[in-house]
Amino acid sequence: MCNDTYIPTEITVVLIDTRNPLNIGSAARALANFGVTDLRLVNPYDVAFREAVSAVGGAPVLQAARVFETLAEALADCSLIVGTTAGQGRIAQHPVDRLEAGMAHVRGFDGRVALLFGSEKFGLSNEDLSFCHSLIRIPTVPETPSMNLGQAVAVCLFEIIREGGSPPVRAAFESPDGADVEKITSLLKDVLLESGYTNRTTSISTHEKVRRWVRRLRISRRDAPLVLGILRQILWKFHRQ
Amino acid sequence: MCNDTYIPTEITVVLIDTRNPLNIGSAARALANFGVTDLRLVNPYDVAFREAVSAVGGAPVLQAARVFETLAEALADCSLIVGTTAGQGRIAQHPVDRLEAGMAHVRGFDGRVALLFGSEKFGLSNEDLSFCHSLIRIPTVPETPSMNLGQAVAVCLFEIIREGGSPPVRAAFESPDGADVEKITSLLKDVLLESGYTNRTTSISTHEKVRRWVRRLRISRRDAPLVLGILRQILWKFHRQ
Repeated sequence: MCNDTYIPTEITVVLIDTRNPLNIGSAARALANFGVTDLRLVNPYDVAFREAVSAVGGAPVLQAARVFETLAEALADCSLIVGTTAGQGRIAQHPVDRLEAGMAHVRGFDGRVALLFGSEKFGLSNEDLSFCHSLIRIPTVPETPSMNLGQAVAVCLFEIIREGGSPPVRAAFESPDGADVEKITSLLKDVLLESGYTNRTTSISTHEKVRRWVRRLRISRRDAPLVLGILRQILWKFHRQ
Repeated sequence: MCNDTYIPTEITVVLIDTRNPLNIGSAARALANFGVTDLRLVNPYDVAFREAVSAVGGAPVLQAARVFETLAEALADCSLIVGTTAGQGRIAQHPVDRLEAGMAHVRGFDGRVALLFGSEKFGLSNEDLSFCHSLIRIPTVPETPSMNLGQAVAVCLFEIIREGGSPPVRAAFESPDGADVEKITSLLKDVLLESGYTNRTTSISTHEKVRRWVRRLRISRRDAPLVLGILRQILWKFHRQ
């Protein structure tokens, strides 16, 4: 292995509902330190975040950061979604891996990987979590679990580029793009709703459940058009009746 | 290995000439996150640093932080001194290890280990470096090598507690306390000076050279009183003449 830092994978860092623009700046700096350039922001609280002085050497990353209104849009071209949490145990039906084990799936993954960081105060919402294939936690002590946002970003990226990190776990299949997975989720939700399997009053929580379930299935890139076709056909049939 | 974070070694974090009190606060938070409690400050720029709001969960660490006028005093009870730098290659005759390899010496070290972090703008001075047994650098990219202080502290502490980190390298001997090493340094400098080996006009740089050399020797805890005794005897003899 060479002596220099490298990011073996296409990494995207997504900051969701970030309140403090200084934290966006210091996250941008951490990206730049580890050679990551793709920063995306979903619904940042302060629209003037690009002026954050805390970016220092990360100013180009900050200037190039893209803003999205929804997480689904931000993840459209991402194949593996990894959420971060300060919690232990299971969260919203997801197992939570320690950082070291969790990043083993990221190192050498063939496709764009998104790392999600929630707001400073509340972390990722249940809706955010429903987009994730896996969750990781930095092994902080239980008495003081919650890290500063920029520090959490730095530690996560370091673990990815770390020499002698856990060996990469190759995905057994090519994942479809996030946009296709979201299309499947949306069509399946419609199918469940229109078939009467679920009802409209619970449709928001259903959407999240379906999203988690679709991601747990890990439909392959090759199978995605097939699944989409079947779901569209079912809906067409419903509307013909 | 258990699933929880633990610090296998007595770790002290020393921040030298830190300008921004927010950085002291966020460093304190990183210590708390990884279960480290001993923060020491040498000559902080802002005496009101204890009010730093950035400490959040690290407030108790910040309140308990001790302030020293000189680095020598701050290191009096430390047996292994590790400096941090953004530079690559060799600095002031010290080889610089990547973080992963450098922390292998820290994990499981039998005695108190001090990690030194220099000022935001200038890093560690040549005098600071002369106290160090070894130097480490976080493997950042050459274009943006310099990390935020709190982030650097977080990444270094994570590497120490990391599961599956480089295996601990047991020291082949017990190191003497930092205070004894500094006494040896000081006496040896006097001996070199009074013997005419070095002269007074270059004595500051001599002191640093001697300090580096004494640390490179790695005099054992058992041998320290012997060496001190010899040096004192030589000086006594000089003054008798």
